[in-house]
Amino acid sequence: MRFTSEQRLDDGVLEREFTLGEIPGILWTPASASASAPAPLILVGHPGGLHKMRPRLAARARRSGADGFAAATIELPGGGDRPRFAVAEQARADLRRALEAGEPVDEEIVDRLVLPLVEKAVPEWQTTLDALLSLPEIGGPVGYSGGVIAIGVRLAVVEPRISAAVLFAGSFVPRTLFEEARQVTIPLHVLLQWDDEGNDRQSALDLFDAFGSKEKTLHANMGGHTGVPEFAGDAAARFFTRHLS
Amino acid sequence: MRFTSEQRLDDGVLEREFTLGEIPGILWTPASASASAPAPLILVGHPGGLHKMRPRLAARARRSGADGFAAATIELPGGGDRPRFAVAEQARADLRRALEAGEPVDEEIVDRLVLPLVEKAVPEWQTTLDALLSLPEIGGPVGYSGGVIAIGVRLAVVEPRISAAVLFAGSFVPRTLFEEARQVTIPLHVLLQWDDEGNDRQSALDLFDAFGSKEKTLHANMGGHTGVPEFAGDAAARFFTRHLS
Repeated sequence: MRFTSEQRLDDGVLEREFTLGEIPGILWTPASASASAPAPLILVGHPGGLHKMRPRLAARARRSGADGFAAATIELPGGGDRPRFAVAEQARADLRRALEAGEPVDEEIVDRLVLPLVEKAVPEWQTTLDALLSLPEIGGPVGYSGGVIAIGVRLAVVEPRISAAVLFAGSFVPRTLFEEARQVTIPLHVLLQWDDEGNDRQSALDLFDAFGSKEKTLHANMGGHTGVPEFAGDAAARFFTRHLS
Repeated sequence: MRFTSEQRLDDGVLEREFTLGEIPGILWTPASASASAPAPLILVGHPGGLHKMRPRLAARARRSGADGFAAATIELPGGGDRPRFAVAEQARADLRRALEAGEPVDEEIVDRLVLPLVEKAVPEWQTTLDALLSLPEIGGPVGYSGGVIAIGVRLAVVEPRISAAVLFAGSFVPRTLFEEARQVTIPLHVLLQWDDEGNDRQSALDLFDAFGSKEKTLHANMGGHTGVPEFAGDAAARFFTRHLS
Protein backbone atom coordinates (compact mmCIF):
# COMPACT_ATOMS: atom_id res chain seq x y z
CA MET A 1 0.00 0.00 0.00
CA ARG A 2 1.55 3.24 -1.18
CA PHE A 3 0.14 6.61 -0.17
CA THR A 4 0.16 9.07 -3.08
CA SER A 5 -1.42 12.14 -1.51
CA GLU A 6 -2.41 13.37 1.92
CA GLN A 7 -4.54 16.24 3.15
CA ARG A 8 -6.07 17.17 6.49
CA LEU A 9 -9.73 18.18 6.00
CA ASP A 10 -11.34 20.98 8.00
CA ASP A 11 -13.08 18.50 10.32
CA GLY A 12 -9.72 16.98 11.24
CA VAL A 13 -10.17 13.87 9.08
CA LEU A 14 -6.96 12.84 7.30
CA GLU A 15 -7.70 11.95 3.67
CA ARG A 16 -5.06 9.87 1.90
CA GLU A 17 -5.10 8.48 -1.61
CA PHE A 18 -3.27 5.23 -2.05
CA THR A 19 -2.52 2.52 -4.55
CA LEU A 20 -2.40 -1.15 -3.72
CA GLY A 21 -0.70 -2.75 -6.69
CA GLU A 22 -2.78 -1.38 -9.54
CA ILE A 23 -5.84 -0.60 -7.43
CA PRO A 24 -6.41 3.03 -6.46
CA GLY A 25 -8.16 3.82 -3.20
CA ILE A 26 -8.80 6.44 -0.55
CA LEU A 27 -8.42 6.20 3.21
CA TRP A 28 -10.02 8.60 5.67
CA THR A 29 -8.92 8.49 9.33
CA PRO A 30 -10.43 10.55 12.13
CA ALA A 31 -8.22 13.00 14.05
CA SER A 32 -8.63 10.77 17.10
CA ALA A 33 -7.01 7.71 15.48
CA SER A 34 -3.54 6.80 16.72
CA ALA A 35 -1.37 3.79 17.43
CA SER A 36 -2.53 3.85 21.04
CA ALA A 37 -6.20 4.37 20.03
CA PRO A 38 -6.68 2.65 16.67
CA ALA A 39 -9.99 3.43 14.95
CA PRO A 40 -12.49 0.78 13.89
CA LEU A 41 -12.79 0.59 10.11
CA ILE A 42 -15.65 0.84 7.62
CA LEU A 43 -15.09 -0.45 4.09
CA VAL A 44 -17.09 1.81 1.77
CA GLY A 45 -18.50 0.02 -1.26
CA HIS A 46 -19.79 1.69 -4.42
CA PRO A 47 -20.82 0.74 -7.97
CA GLY A 48 -17.51 1.74 -9.57
CA GLY A 49 -16.08 5.02 -10.86
CA LEU A 50 -14.21 6.34 -7.85
CA HIS A 51 -13.70 9.80 -9.28
CA LYS A 52 -17.37 10.40 -10.04
CA MET A 53 -18.49 8.83 -6.75
CA ARG A 54 -15.89 10.64 -4.68
CA PRO A 55 -18.01 13.53 -3.27
CA ARG A 56 -20.66 11.10 -1.98
CA LEU A 57 -18.08 8.62 -0.67
CA ALA A 58 -16.12 11.39 1.07
CA ALA A 59 -19.32 12.66 2.72
CA ARG A 60 -20.07 9.15 4.04
CA ALA A 61 -16.46 8.74 5.19
CA ARG A 62 -16.40 12.11 6.99
CA ARG A 63 -19.64 11.25 8.73
CA SER A 64 -17.98 8.00 9.86
CA GLY A 65 -14.94 9.99 10.92
CA ALA A 66 -17.12 12.16 13.16
CA ASP A 67 -18.28 8.93 14.82
CA GLY A 68 -14.67 7.85 15.39
CA PHE A 69 -14.37 5.41 12.49
CA ALA A 70 -11.78 5.17 9.75
CA ALA A 71 -13.22 4.57 6.29
CA ALA A 72 -11.65 3.27 3.10
CA THR A 73 -12.70 2.63 -0.45
CA ILE A 74 -11.08 1.13 -3.55
CA GLU A 75 -11.91 1.29 -7.24
CA LEU A 76 -13.95 -1.62 -8.57
CA PRO A 77 -12.42 -3.99 -11.14
CA GLY A 78 -13.12 -2.38 -14.52
CA GLY A 79 -14.23 0.88 -12.87
CA GLY A 80 -12.79 4.37 -13.36
CA ASP A 81 -9.31 4.25 -14.90
CA ARG A 82 -8.78 0.56 -14.26
CA PRO A 83 -8.47 -1.75 -17.28
CA ARG A 84 -11.84 -2.64 -18.80
CA PHE A 85 -13.29 -5.90 -17.61
CA ALA A 86 -14.28 -7.62 -20.86
CA VAL A 87 -16.92 -10.06 -19.62
CA ALA A 88 -18.67 -7.39 -17.55
CA GLU A 89 -18.50 -4.88 -20.42
CA GLN A 90 -20.22 -7.37 -22.69
CA ALA A 91 -22.87 -8.10 -20.08
CA ARG A 92 -23.43 -4.37 -19.51
CA ALA A 93 -23.97 -3.90 -23.26
CA ASP A 94 -26.43 -6.81 -23.33
CA LEU A 95 -28.22 -5.35 -20.31
CA ARG A 96 -28.48 -1.92 -21.91
CA ARG A 97 -29.89 -3.50 -25.07
CA ALA A 98 -32.51 -5.43 -23.08
CA LEU A 99 -33.53 -2.35 -21.08
CA GLU A 100 -33.78 -0.16 -24.18
CA ALA A 101 -35.89 -2.80 -25.91
CA GLY A 102 -38.12 -2.91 -22.82
CA GLU A 103 -37.41 -6.62 -22.45
CA PRO A 104 -37.18 -8.39 -19.08
CA VAL A 105 -33.54 -8.72 -18.04
CA ASP A 106 -32.43 -12.30 -18.49
CA GLU A 107 -30.97 -13.89 -15.35
CA GLU A 108 -28.07 -15.12 -17.41
CA ILE A 109 -27.11 -11.50 -18.22
CA VAL A 110 -27.25 -10.57 -14.53
CA ASP A 111 -25.01 -13.54 -13.70
CA ARG A 112 -22.48 -12.46 -16.33
CA LEU A 113 -22.65 -8.85 -15.10
CA VAL A 114 -22.31 -9.43 -11.37
CA LEU A 115 -20.64 -12.76 -10.62
CA PRO A 116 -17.24 -12.14 -12.27
CA LEU A 117 -17.17 -8.75 -10.56
CA VAL A 118 -17.77 -10.39 -7.18
CA GLU A 119 -15.10 -13.04 -7.89
CA LYS A 120 -12.54 -10.35 -8.64
CA ALA A 121 -13.57 -7.61 -6.20
CA VAL A 122 -13.85 -9.66 -3.02
CA PRO A 123 -10.19 -10.84 -2.91
CA GLU A 124 -9.15 -7.25 -3.69
CA TRP A 125 -11.14 -6.01 -0.69
CA GLN A 126 -9.51 -8.70 1.44
CA THR A 127 -6.01 -7.70 0.34
CA THR A 128 -6.91 -4.09 1.04
CA LEU A 129 -8.16 -5.10 4.47
CA ASP A 130 -4.84 -6.85 5.19
CA ALA A 131 -2.97 -3.66 4.28
CA LEU A 132 -5.30 -1.33 6.21
CA LEU A 133 -5.25 -3.41 9.37
CA SER A 134 -1.44 -3.38 9.30
CA LEU A 135 -1.53 0.42 9.81
CA PRO A 136 -1.05 1.23 13.52
CA GLU A 137 -3.87 3.83 13.55
CA ILE A 138 -6.46 1.32 12.31
CA GLY A 139 -7.90 -1.54 14.34
CA GLY A 140 -10.98 -3.68 14.38
CA PRO A 141 -13.83 -4.26 14.34
CA VAL A 142 -14.55 -3.85 10.64
CA GLY A 143 -17.81 -3.04 8.88
CA TYR A 144 -18.80 -3.01 5.22
CA SER A 145 -21.08 -0.27 3.93
CA GLY A 146 -22.63 0.06 0.50
CA GLY A 147 -23.28 -1.68 -2.75
CA VAL A 148 -22.65 -3.57 -4.97
CA ILE A 149 -24.85 -5.68 -2.67
CA ALA A 150 -23.53 -8.97 -4.12
CA ILE A 151 -20.00 -7.94 -3.10
CA GLY A 152 -21.18 -7.03 0.40
CA VAL A 153 -22.95 -10.36 0.77
CA ARG A 154 -19.96 -12.41 -0.42
CA LEU A 155 -17.64 -10.48 1.90
CA ALA A 156 -20.02 -11.06 4.81
CA VAL A 157 -19.87 -14.80 4.09
CA VAL A 158 -16.16 -15.32 3.43
CA GLU A 159 -14.43 -12.60 5.48
CA PRO A 160 -14.62 -13.28 9.24
CA ARG A 161 -13.01 -9.92 10.06
CA ILE A 162 -16.20 -8.13 8.93
CA SER A 163 -18.57 -8.01 11.86
CA ALA A 164 -21.48 -5.86 10.63
CA ALA A 165 -22.71 -4.53 7.29
CA VAL A 166 -24.92 -1.79 5.89
CA LEU A 167 -26.08 -3.06 2.51
CA PHE A 168 -27.62 -0.88 -0.20
CA ALA A 169 -30.30 -2.69 -2.17
CA GLY A 170 -30.56 -1.42 -5.71
CA SER A 171 -28.41 -3.44 -8.05
CA PHE A 172 -29.25 -6.55 -10.01
CA VAL A 173 -29.32 -9.66 -7.88
CA PRO A 174 -27.91 -12.89 -9.34
CA ARG A 175 -29.85 -16.06 -8.47
CA THR A 176 -27.03 -17.59 -6.45
CA LEU A 177 -27.02 -14.59 -4.11
CA PHE A 178 -30.09 -15.89 -2.31
CA GLU A 179 -28.20 -19.05 -1.37
CA GLU A 180 -25.26 -17.01 -0.13
CA ALA A 181 -27.57 -14.70 1.81
CA ARG A 182 -28.73 -17.63 3.92
CA GLN A 183 -25.13 -18.12 5.08
CA VAL A 184 -24.78 -14.54 6.35
CA THR A 185 -24.95 -14.36 10.14
CA ILE A 186 -23.52 -10.92 11.02
CA PRO A 187 -25.85 -8.04 11.98
CA LEU A 188 -27.22 -6.35 8.85
CA HIS A 189 -28.81 -2.98 8.17
CA VAL A 190 -30.34 -2.96 4.68
CA LEU A 191 -31.24 0.30 2.93
CA LEU A 192 -33.92 0.16 0.25
CA GLN A 193 -35.02 3.14 -1.83
CA TRP A 194 -38.67 2.21 -2.28
CA ASP A 195 -39.14 4.00 -5.62
CA ASP A 196 -35.70 3.33 -7.04
CA GLU A 197 -36.35 3.22 -10.78
CA GLY A 198 -33.41 0.88 -11.46
CA ASN A 199 -34.22 -1.51 -8.64
CA ASP A 200 -36.39 -4.59 -8.42
CA ARG A 201 -38.14 -3.97 -5.10
CA GLN A 202 -39.50 -7.49 -4.75
CA SER A 203 -36.11 -8.98 -5.34
CA ALA A 204 -34.65 -6.71 -2.63
CA LEU A 205 -37.39 -7.80 -0.19
CA ASP A 206 -36.78 -11.47 -1.04
CA LEU A 207 -33.08 -11.01 -0.44
CA PHE A 208 -33.74 -9.35 2.93
CA ASP A 209 -35.94 -12.29 3.83
CA ALA A 210 -33.21 -14.76 2.84
CA PHE A 211 -30.46 -13.38 5.08
CA GLY A 212 -29.59 -15.79 7.87
CA SER A 213 -28.69 -13.05 10.34
CA LYS A 214 -30.52 -13.00 13.63
CA GLU A 215 -30.32 -9.22 13.68
CA LYS A 216 -31.32 -7.73 10.36
CA THR A 217 -33.19 -4.49 9.80
CA LEU A 218 -34.68 -3.11 6.61
CA HIS A 219 -35.01 0.65 6.24
CA ALA A 220 -37.12 1.59 3.23
CA ASN A 221 -37.36 5.25 2.27
CA MET A 222 -38.85 7.33 -0.49
CA GLY A 223 -36.84 8.80 -3.32
CA GLY A 224 -34.75 7.44 -6.18
CA HIS A 225 -31.47 5.58 -6.21
CA THR A 226 -29.33 8.46 -4.93
CA GLY A 227 -32.04 10.07 -2.80
CA VAL A 228 -31.30 8.36 0.53
CA PRO A 229 -32.58 10.89 3.10
CA GLU A 230 -30.14 12.33 5.62
CA PHE A 231 -31.99 10.72 8.54
CA ALA A 232 -31.49 7.31 6.89
CA GLY A 233 -27.76 7.96 6.73
CA ASP A 234 -27.89 8.88 10.41
CA ALA A 235 -29.66 5.62 11.22
CA ALA A 236 -27.03 3.62 9.33
CA ALA A 237 -24.30 5.46 11.22
CA ARG A 238 -25.96 4.57 14.52
CA PHE A 239 -26.07 0.91 13.45
CA PHE A 240 -22.27 0.95 13.06
CA THR A 241 -21.83 2.79 16.35
CA ARG A 242 -23.84 0.04 18.04
CA HIS A 243 -21.84 -2.78 16.45
CA LEU A 244 -18.31 -1.48 15.89
CA SER A 245 -17.66 0.78 18.89
CA MET B 1 -61.67 14.84 31.86
CA ARG B 2 -61.40 13.84 35.47
CA PHE B 3 -58.10 12.76 37.03
CA THR B 4 -58.53 9.80 39.36
CA SER B 5 -54.96 9.16 40.48
CA GLU B 6 -51.61 10.86 40.30
CA GLN B 7 -48.05 9.73 40.97
CA ARG B 8 -44.62 11.15 40.24
CA LEU B 9 -42.37 8.42 38.78
CA ASP B 10 -38.68 8.19 39.61
CA ASP B 11 -37.69 9.75 36.29
CA GLY B 12 -39.79 12.84 37.09
CA VAL B 13 -42.65 11.87 34.75
CA LEU B 14 -46.08 12.62 36.23
CA GLU B 15 -48.45 9.68 35.65
CA ARG B 16 -52.15 10.44 35.97
CA GLU B 17 -55.08 8.13 35.40
CA PHE B 18 -58.20 9.82 34.12
CA THR B 19 -61.69 9.15 32.88
CA LEU B 20 -63.30 11.00 30.03
CA GLY B 21 -66.98 10.18 30.32
CA GLU B 22 -66.84 6.39 30.50
CA ILE B 23 -63.45 6.05 28.87
CA PRO B 24 -60.48 5.35 31.14
CA GLY B 25 -57.07 6.64 30.15
CA ILE B 26 -53.59 7.51 31.36
CA LEU B 27 -51.59 10.69 30.85
CA TRP B 28 -47.83 10.95 31.33
CA THR B 29 -46.23 14.41 31.38
CA PRO B 30 -42.50 15.10 31.60
CA ALA B 31 -41.13 17.05 34.56
CA SER B 32 -40.27 19.85 32.15
CA ALA B 33 -43.88 20.45 31.04
CA SER B 34 -45.51 23.63 32.33
CA ALA B 35 -47.94 26.33 31.27
CA SER B 36 -45.02 28.42 30.03
CA ALA B 37 -43.36 25.45 28.31
CA PRO B 38 -46.18 23.12 27.20
CA ALA B 39 -45.02 19.70 25.99
CA PRO B 40 -45.81 18.28 22.55
CA LEU B 41 -48.10 15.28 22.80
CA ILE B 42 -47.96 11.69 21.58
CA LEU B 43 -51.18 9.67 21.47
CA VAL B 44 -50.27 6.09 22.29
CA GLY B 45 -52.41 3.52 20.49
CA HIS B 46 -52.71 -0.15 21.44
CA PRO B 47 -54.88 -3.19 20.61
CA GLY B 48 -57.11 -2.86 23.66
CA GLY B 49 -56.84 -4.06 27.25
CA LEU B 50 -55.24 -1.10 28.98
CA HIS B 51 -54.44 -2.99 32.17
CA LYS B 52 -52.58 -5.80 30.42
CA MET B 53 -50.82 -3.41 28.04
CA ARG B 54 -49.92 -0.93 30.76
CA PRO B 55 -46.28 -1.93 31.42
CA ARG B 56 -45.42 -1.68 27.73
CA LEU B 57 -47.39 1.54 27.25
CA ALA B 58 -45.81 3.12 30.32
CA ALA B 59 -42.35 2.20 29.05
CA ARG B 60 -43.09 3.89 25.71
CA ALA B 61 -44.56 6.92 27.48
CA ARG B 62 -41.59 7.30 29.81
CA ARG B 63 -39.22 7.08 26.87
CA SER B 64 -41.27 9.88 25.25
CA GLY B 65 -41.12 11.81 28.53
CA ALA B 66 -37.33 11.63 28.48
CA ASP B 67 -37.48 13.24 25.04
CA GLY B 68 -39.70 16.05 26.38
CA PHE B 69 -43.03 14.73 25.14
CA ALA B 70 -46.28 14.15 26.98
CA ALA B 71 -48.00 10.86 26.15
CA ALA B 72 -51.56 9.70 26.62
CA THR B 73 -53.57 6.58 26.00
CA ILE B 74 -57.21 5.56 26.35
CA GLU B 75 -58.96 2.21 26.49
CA LEU B 76 -60.32 0.93 23.17
CA PRO B 77 -64.10 0.55 22.70
CA GLY B 78 -64.88 -2.95 23.99
CA GLY B 79 -61.43 -3.30 25.54
CA GLY B 80 -60.53 -3.93 29.20
CA ASP B 81 -63.44 -3.16 31.51
CA ARG B 82 -65.42 -1.21 28.92
CA PRO B 83 -68.78 -2.66 27.80
CA ARG B 84 -68.37 -5.47 25.25
CA PHE B 85 -68.69 -4.34 21.67
CA ALA B 86 -71.13 -6.87 20.20
CA VAL B 87 -70.30 -6.63 16.51
CA ALA B 88 -66.56 -6.82 17.13
CA GLU B 89 -67.02 -9.73 19.58
CA GLN B 90 -68.91 -11.67 16.93
CA ALA B 91 -66.27 -10.89 14.32
CA ARG B 92 -63.53 -11.94 16.73
CA ALA B 93 -65.28 -15.27 17.32
CA ASP B 94 -65.63 -15.80 13.56
CA LEU B 95 -61.97 -14.91 13.09
CA ARG B 96 -60.89 -17.36 15.78
CA ARG B 97 -62.97 -20.08 14.18
CA ALA B 98 -61.41 -19.41 10.76
CA LEU B 99 -57.87 -19.39 12.17
CA GLU B 100 -58.44 -22.59 14.16
CA ALA B 101 -59.85 -24.29 11.08
CA GLY B 102 -56.77 -23.15 9.14
CA GLU B 103 -59.03 -21.31 6.68
CA PRO B 104 -58.06 -18.06 4.98
CA VAL B 105 -59.58 -15.11 6.85
CA ASP B 106 -62.50 -13.73 4.89
CA GLU B 107 -62.23 -10.01 4.11
CA GLU B 108 -65.77 -9.59 5.30
CA ILE B 109 -64.75 -10.81 8.79
CA VAL B 110 -61.86 -8.34 8.85
CA ASP B 111 -64.25 -5.53 7.88
CA ARG B 112 -66.64 -6.45 10.68
CA LEU B 113 -63.75 -6.73 13.14
CA VAL B 114 -61.94 -3.49 12.36
CA LEU B 115 -64.28 -0.95 10.76
CA PRO B 116 -66.80 -0.50 13.60
CA LEU B 117 -63.86 -0.19 15.99
CA VAL B 118 -62.37 2.57 13.85
CA GLU B 119 -65.74 4.34 13.62
CA LYS B 120 -66.07 4.37 17.37
CA ALA B 121 -62.45 4.83 18.47
CA VAL B 122 -61.48 7.75 16.24
CA PRO B 123 -64.05 10.24 17.63
CA GLU B 124 -63.07 9.13 21.13
CA TRP B 125 -59.44 9.93 20.39
CA GLN B 126 -60.51 13.31 19.03
CA THR B 127 -62.53 14.13 22.16
CA THR B 128 -59.56 13.03 24.25
CA LEU B 129 -57.33 15.29 22.17
CA ASP B 130 -59.67 18.25 22.81
CA ALA B 131 -59.44 17.62 26.54
CA LEU B 132 -55.68 17.07 26.58
CA LEU B 133 -54.91 20.18 24.55
CA SER B 134 -57.00 22.26 26.97
CA LEU B 135 -54.50 21.42 29.73
CA PRO B 136 -51.99 24.29 30.12
CA GLU B 137 -48.97 21.94 30.32
CA ILE B 138 -49.76 20.29 26.98
CA GLY B 139 -49.32 21.92 23.60
CA GLY B 140 -48.85 20.88 20.02
CA PRO B 141 -47.65 19.44 17.80
CA VAL B 142 -49.33 16.06 18.22
CA GLY B 143 -48.19 12.65 17.06
CA TYR B 144 -49.93 9.25 17.00
CA SER B 145 -47.94 6.15 17.87
CA GLY B 146 -49.05 2.55 17.68
CA GLY B 147 -51.71 0.23 16.41
CA VAL B 148 -54.48 -0.56 15.69
CA ILE B 149 -53.05 0.63 12.36
CA ALA B 150 -56.53 1.27 10.89
CA ILE B 151 -57.23 3.72 13.72
CA GLY B 152 -53.91 5.47 13.16
CA VAL B 153 -54.59 5.78 9.44
CA ARG B 154 -58.10 7.17 9.92
CA LEU B 155 -56.82 9.65 12.51
CA ALA B 156 -54.06 10.74 10.14
CA VAL B 157 -56.70 11.42 7.48
CA VAL B 158 -59.40 13.16 9.51
CA GLU B 159 -57.56 14.87 12.35
CA PRO B 160 -55.48 17.85 11.17
CA ARG B 161 -53.94 18.35 14.61
CA ILE B 162 -51.92 15.14 14.15
CA SER B 163 -48.74 16.02 12.33
CA ALA B 164 -46.70 12.79 12.34
CA ALA B 165 -47.37 9.12 13.08
CA VAL B 166 -45.50 5.97 14.01
CA LEU B 167 -47.68 3.10 12.81
CA PHE B 168 -47.30 -0.51 13.93
CA ALA B 169 -48.10 -2.96 11.16
CA GLY B 170 -49.43 -6.21 12.50
CA SER B 171 -53.19 -6.17 12.65
CA PHE B 172 -55.71 -7.20 10.03
CA VAL B 173 -56.11 -4.64 7.28
CA PRO B 174 -59.61 -4.00 5.88
CA ARG B 175 -59.79 -3.44 2.13
CA THR B 176 -60.94 0.17 2.42
CA LEU B 177 -57.81 1.06 4.38
CA PHE B 178 -55.75 1.11 1.20
CA GLU B 179 -57.97 3.88 -0.18
CA GLU B 180 -57.65 5.86 3.03
CA ALA B 181 -53.89 5.32 3.07
CA ARG B 182 -53.59 7.20 -0.21
CA GLN B 183 -55.10 10.26 1.50
CA VAL B 184 -52.48 10.33 4.26
CA THR B 185 -49.91 13.09 3.73
CA ILE B 186 -48.21 13.50 7.12
CA PRO B 187 -44.73 12.05 7.74
CA LEU B 188 -44.97 8.35 8.63
CA HIS B 189 -42.66 5.90 10.33
CA VAL B 190 -43.97 2.35 9.91
CA LEU B 191 -42.74 -0.51 12.09
CA LEU B 192 -43.04 -4.03 10.72
CA GLN B 193 -42.05 -7.15 12.62
CA TRP B 194 -40.88 -9.27 9.71
CA ASP B 195 -41.68 -12.64 11.28
CA ASP B 196 -44.83 -11.59 13.13
CA GLU B 197 -46.86 -14.79 13.18
CA GLY B 198 -50.19 -12.93 13.32
CA ASN B 199 -49.35 -10.49 10.57
CA ASP B 200 -49.77 -10.59 6.81
CA ARG B 201 -46.41 -9.23 5.71
CA GLN B 202 -47.43 -8.65 2.11
CA SER B 203 -50.48 -6.72 3.18
CA ALA B 204 -48.30 -4.52 5.42
CA LEU B 205 -45.92 -3.85 2.51
CA ASP B 206 -48.84 -3.03 0.21
CA LEU B 207 -50.22 -0.63 2.79
CA PHE B 208 -46.84 1.07 3.15
CA ASP B 209 -46.73 1.43 -0.62
CA ALA B 210 -50.21 2.98 -0.66
CA PHE B 211 -49.54 5.81 1.80
CA GLY B 212 -49.63 9.19 0.06
CA SER B 213 -47.04 10.74 2.37
CA LYS B 214 -43.96 12.21 0.75
CA GLU B 215 -41.91 11.21 3.78
CA LYS B 216 -42.59 7.63 4.79
CA THR B 217 -40.10 5.16 6.18
CA LEU B 218 -40.51 1.45 6.79
CA HIS B 219 -38.43 -0.19 9.50
CA ALA B 220 -38.63 -3.96 9.36
CA ASN B 221 -37.05 -5.96 12.17
CA MET B 222 -36.79 -9.56 13.23
CA GLY B 223 -38.80 -11.08 16.03
CA GLY B 224 -42.47 -11.65 16.73
CA HIS B 225 -45.33 -9.26 17.35
CA THR B 226 -44.08 -7.98 20.70
CA GLY B 227 -40.39 -8.37 19.93
CA VAL B 228 -39.68 -4.86 18.60
CA PRO B 229 -35.95 -4.39 19.36
CA GLU B 230 -34.90 -1.53 21.61
CA PHE B 231 -32.97 0.17 18.79
CA ALA B 232 -36.19 0.23 16.72
CA GLY B 233 -37.96 2.02 19.57
CA ASP B 234 -35.07 4.48 19.66
CA ALA B 235 -35.43 5.12 15.93
CA ALA B 236 -39.17 5.76 16.32
CA ALA B 237 -38.43 8.18 19.16
CA ARG B 238 -35.98 10.06 16.95
CA PHE B 239 -38.64 10.30 14.24
CA PHE B 240 -40.91 12.11 16.70
CA THR B 241 -38.07 14.32 17.89
CA ARG B 242 -37.48 15.35 14.27
CA HIS B 243 -41.13 16.11 13.60
CA LEU B 244 -42.66 17.26 16.88
CA SER B 245 -39.87 19.23 18.57
